[in-house]
Amino acid sequence: MVIIMKNDATKADIEKVCEYVKKYNLTPNVVNGSERSIIGIIGDVSILEDKPVNTMQGVYDVVRISSPYKLVSRAAKPCNTVIKVKDLEIGGENFTIMAGPCAVESYDQMLETAKNIKKSGAKVLRGGAYKPRTSPYSFQGLEEEGLKILKKVGDETGLITITEIIDSSHIEKLSRYVDILQVGSRNMQNFELLKNIGKSKMPVLLKRGLSSTIEEWLNAAEYILKEGNPNVILCERGIRTFETYTRNTLDLNAVAAVKNLSHLPIIVDPSHGTGRRDLIGPMSRAATAVGADGVMIEVHPNPEMALSDGAQSLRPDEFDKVCKEIKKILLIMKEV
Amino acid sequence: MVIIMKNDATKADIEKVCEYVKKYNLTPNVVNGSERSIIGIIGDVSILEDKPVNTMQGVYDVVRISSPYKLVSRAAKPCNTVIKVKDLEIGGENFTIMAGPCAVESYDQMLETAKNIKKSGAKVLRGGAYKPRTSPYSFQGLEEEGLKILKKVGDETGLITITEIIDSSHIEKLSRYVDILQVGSRNMQNFELLKNIGKSKMPVLLKRGLSSTIEEWLNAAEYILKEGNPNVILCERGIRTFETYTRNTLDLNAVAAVKNLSHLPIIVDPSHGTGRRDLIGPMSRAATAVGADGVMIEVHPNPEMALSDGAQSLRPDEFDKVCKEIKKILLIMKEV
Amino acid sequence: MVIIMKNDATKADIEKVCEYVKKYNLTPNVVNGSERSIIGIIGDVSILEDKPVNTMQGVYDVVRISSPYKLVSRAAKPCNTVIKVKDLEIGGENFTIMAGPCAVESYDQMLETAKNIKKSGAKVLRGGAYKPRTSPYSFQGLEEEGLKILKKVGDETGLITITEIIDSSHIEKLSRYVDILQVGSRNMQNFELLKNIGKSKMPVLLKRGLSSTIEEWLNAAEYILKEGNPNVILCERGIRTFETYTRNTLDLNAVAAVKNLSHLPIIVDPSHGTGRRDLIGPMSRAATAVGADGVMIEVHPNPEMALSDGAQSLRPDEFDKVCKEIKKILLIMKEV
Amino acid sequence: MVIIMKNDATKADIEKVCEYVKKYNLTPNVVNGSERSIIGIIGDVSILEDKPVNTMQGVYDVVRISSPYKLVSRAAKPCNTVIKVKDLEIGGENFTIMAGPCAVESYDQMLETAKNIKKSGAKVLRGGAYKPRTSPYSFQGLEEEGLKILKKVGDETGLITITEIIDSSHIEKLSRYVDILQVGSRNMQNFELLKNIGKSKMPVLLKRGLSSTIEEWLNAAEYILKEGNPNVILCERGIRTFETYTRNTLDLNAVAAVKNLSHLPIIVDPSHGTGRRDLIGPMSRAATAVGADGVMIEVHPNPEMALSDGAQSLRPDEFDKVCKEIKKILLIMKEV
Repeated sequence: MVIIMKNDATKADIEKVCEYVKKYNLTPNVVNGSERSIIGIIGDVSILEDKPVNTMQGVYDVVRISSPYKLVSRAAKPCNTVIKVKDLEIGGENFTIMAGPCAVESYDQMLETAKNIKKSGAKVLRGGAYKPRTSPYSFQGLEEEGLKILKKVGDETGLITITEIIDSSHIEKLSRYVDILQVGSRNMQNFELLKNIGKSKMPVLLKRGLSSTIEEWLNAAEYILKEGNPNVILCERGIRTFETYTRNTLDLNAVAAVKNLSHLPIIVDPSHGTGRRDLIGPMSRAATAVGADGVMIEVHPNPEMALSDGAQSLRPDEFDKVCKEIKKILLIMKEV
Repeated sequence: MVIIMKNDATKADIEKVCEYVKKYNLTPNVVNGSERSIIGIIGDVSILEDKPVNTMQGVYDVVRISSPYKLVSRAAKPCNTVIKVKDLEIGGENFTIMAGPCAVESYDQMLETAKNIKKSGAKVLRGGAYKPRTSPYSFQGLEEEGLKILKKVGDETGLITITEIIDSSHIEKLSRYVDILQVGSRNMQNFELLKNIGKSKMPVLLKRGLSSTIEEWLNAAEYILKEGNPNVILCERGIRTFETYTRNTLDLNAVAAVKNLSHLPIIVDPSHGTGRRDLIGPMSRAATAVGADGVMIEVHPNPEMALSDGAQSLRPDEFDKVCKEIKKILLIMKEV
Repeated sequence: MVIIMKNDATKADIEKVCEYVKKYNLTPNVVNGSERSIIGIIGDVSILEDKPVNTMQGVYDVVRISSPYKLVSRAAKPCNTVIKVKDLEIGGENFTIMAGPCAVESYDQMLETAKNIKKSGAKVLRGGAYKPRTSPYSFQGLEEEGLKILKKVGDETGLITITEIIDSSHIEKLSRYVDILQVGSRNMQNFELLKNIGKSKMPVLLKRGLSSTIEEWLNAAEYILKEGNPNVILCERGIRTFETYTRNTLDLNAVAAVKNLSHLPIIVDPSHGTGRRDLIGPMSRAATAVGADGVMIEVHPNPEMALSDGAQSLRPDEFDKVCKEIKKILLIMKEV
Repeated sequence: MVIIMKNDATKADIEKVCEYVKKYNLTPNVVNGSERSIIGIIGDVSILEDKPVNTMQGVYDVVRISSPYKLVSRAAKPCNTVIKVKDLEIGGENFTIMAGPCAVESYDQMLETAKNIKKSGAKVLRGGAYKPRTSPYSFQGLEEEGLKILKKVGDETGLITITEIIDSSHIEKLSRYVDILQVGSRNMQNFELLKNIGKSKMPVLLKRGLSSTIEEWLNAAEYILKEGNPNVILCERGIRTFETYTRNTLDLNAVAAVKNLSHLPIIVDPSHGTGRRDLIGPMSRAATAVGADGVMIEVHPNPEMALSDGAQSLRPDEFDKVCKEIKKILLIMKEV
């Protein structure tokens, strides 16, 4: 940690800061510049995280030079994490395709979707039972009825299942029905939910918040790991920018960055990331080429009749074409 | 609702859309343009909210021409809502000053703060007991111990109290200790929490999400009103933009806009909104001049020693100066 | 300047960096931390501005601890700059109201507007003759014909005139017709234009770029001052954010910040800043209360018939009401 | 065009709007809804582009349902544009690699770079002679001396050359030295420059503005085509978002979108787009997979000693590796 003093900081100001950090068993090193002084702090500076050093008399800025997250960092664990869900492995050498409708609507809809996506190579079936919707007047999901359908179809097809969790009190129930929990972007900083999932040990897919920095996202994952649950899959799903042509701006830069910063697997969701059916194919190819560990794509047997998100869902035949393209890119990725 | 067809939409496409909306007892009116056709829909179009009209064959876009929220809208209730909390009235002709530390740290800290802010004219004492923090390694609050301190100091000074709620399961407990619940920006779209608060009827201050549009924010408030709780106070606390000089960009445009769009009272938080102690005074004056119903300002007897948010907290004497300026502007506002 | 080394930087890396900065007569001070080393650099570090220190072997980051702009900074000139244009003084104790239509359309339109705004207290008449428009098919302005009208009306009413400049080659011509040049937000980083205006010594109003940070904006002003022209008025006109209800997000935080960072006067444009006629009044009051040195408001005798920007123009009677409110707030501002 | 009336619009308001549009030989079609009326307008509505219909009494909103750009749109020219520069073809079936240093520094630097990039498969050599820099104290380029070096190296190696233009007055001079002009992101809406380049017929690479929407970008290209110059190459180079880990957020969604919306070729610049050397490889692969017509990558023989942008420049051997990966992806792209 480096403490930068103001131009007009006095000797007394500097001494006061030094005394302050010494109380925490840290060693200050003062460098007196021509314009101002800086103080390098040596020792376990994490203890200062909550301390108001930046508002002490004469302090201009405090520069943190180590990342606030630890367990999720690549430095803490150099090799890629592989997460096992039943006989499926996510991360490492594997590329995992997750697919399914935005919301579970009926047994028939789910079974038809499941059979189709399995044929195309998907291993995980998605389907929302509890839907967080902007307006209270929008369809909120089939709730437990939806979970039952998801489980039944998962059992019948052998697909791994994933569904969104929207409240801490649902963990136990969801764990009886599905294999992977999904934390949506609106709940990425619902820290009580993260802590509770951390305690549960359930595999969890953590979507990036709509306007979360990469650092905030990794800190959110840290909440889960810190409670003892290492089974976190990250999911980039687009960020909010000024551009309105796409629903969100799918940020593939973040995927490449996360591969450097963390050992956790990262999946890309081009459906929410773009909000446009015509961009899902190109962005799926790009996600594969940038090095993602998988994709999650909305598929509906009849997007025009979907109860939600039809505009960003593929028909099974369109999805099949995208999967074929992904597989070709994957052949190349082995060599790069 | 207006449905805009693609340039190359066929007659059959148009007829199919017309048939579709008629099934919901709506009346389509086709206008055939030189380049394309548009279909005006008459009737209660809210039933189409979840329907995938926009993905039907030949449809270019669907333009919603009424707001999705109802109960919170100015149209639904032209006069300003005044929220009563004990003998305090928020909204309408009143301007309410809320103040206190980011986090409850000790009884002495709270009592000293409370006495000071009361002298300056504040009516509501804030203090966090459960703190949502970006990093799991940051101070997370005194929890129930903090609630007890807050209640004790509230009782002794006669100030109304407010604290942040971070999980649905805490509602009952918090309602025993404090007068107003606060939903933080990270939980603005935690819809389960909103629904549960809606059922509780507790007065609630709903902060705008970090990157929420005004419409999303009003929809979040709608979730609470829809469950039967009309006691919602909105709070603008800064949005995330590209600018890094300020912690957030306090958006006073939104305050003026909300006064037009909704009857709910709206409070401004210049502490989180700017993140800089030196901007709190000017932005508090501006918030008053723009027409806000109050401000919420972080005050700490010793900001340099605050356990969180010291950089954006005022000392009691600084706070007193800001209150005096606000009162002068308020005299003028009566006349505009 | 502080150079932060990587965790795995070697002694040789550190020495190489030290050697490098010594070549520029700077003194490095190495502080060896537990995890990594930092190097504080003493001397005139501006010489390193273009040097690729951040990409040298073992370097993690370089932290600049002085602002890159000098002449515009408050540190360089503690007292407020007052800019004289004929007998008008802008900045310091003065509050200047600028008004007029987006575009000069006709002599009658300009004369009627000028008489009205003068009566309400405006001192500066605006009107675009060369209009930068998003689409090449939109009205591009009356060009020199517009300048003639602006000059004639300025002469007849005694109002100071301002118009936008869009190309370096126009400086000489514009200086014959108007008193103040305006650099629009799209040209804020058209550095050739800035340099040429710097050489001209003409008073200039420099609008903030649509997505410029405060630092980039002050750097743009520095380009003008560096060439010898101190007559720069800054103008906040809204930034681009995710919010679509307002055309832009008028950023009053930046006004308060600039008053701290720079000695230059700063004006607020609530017309472009909000894009909505109904928000101009409240935001003008707020701009006054936050401490701006003036406002620039679009006024048109008949906004519904304006050739551009009608949606954000006030009628003369509406403008008069806003001016009266501003004056009341100004009375208070003398005391704060 | 659809005009949406307010809930409380009167019959007279509606009639007035109808009369207004009829004056321009357009046909209004009124649809009276339960809550409000809408008016569909038939005919050549482009004439209303500058008219203030949206501010007429009773008007709630005006919805434009055709794009404002014409010549650049895919609708105007379904097949891909191929731009010929000497014997090089850009766009269509071709993938073009452009590379070189941020700034021309010396003949030796350029020659070494040119030979290296040619070996790796690049066809276009970039190098700035006039550099737009945020601070006036940063290196501003070698100016004409730089142009001479660029031309000499281009001639000797047979590479096509490209350099940035920063002022209209430079067009003639630049056209004597280089093959392609580059308009930087800061000048994307410098409309005088665009018009003048339009008149020149020189091939031009038009970078997307830092915070320009796709529609604004295509409108900027329209300025050039409208003046008679069809030789426009678009270049995505990252947009400004809240994320600070990357310098900008390279927006590959925009590449996929532009391929749908326009017939112009589009190139991706991962150097400026990410600002990080370690992300250039992955994002170049992704750009290829998403369907871009080429990439532009900063290469410097010794990035650590570069006079600008060293942090985002590759060494020749790193660049060679990226080119090899691109070529592998290209083999696949032929099949998708």
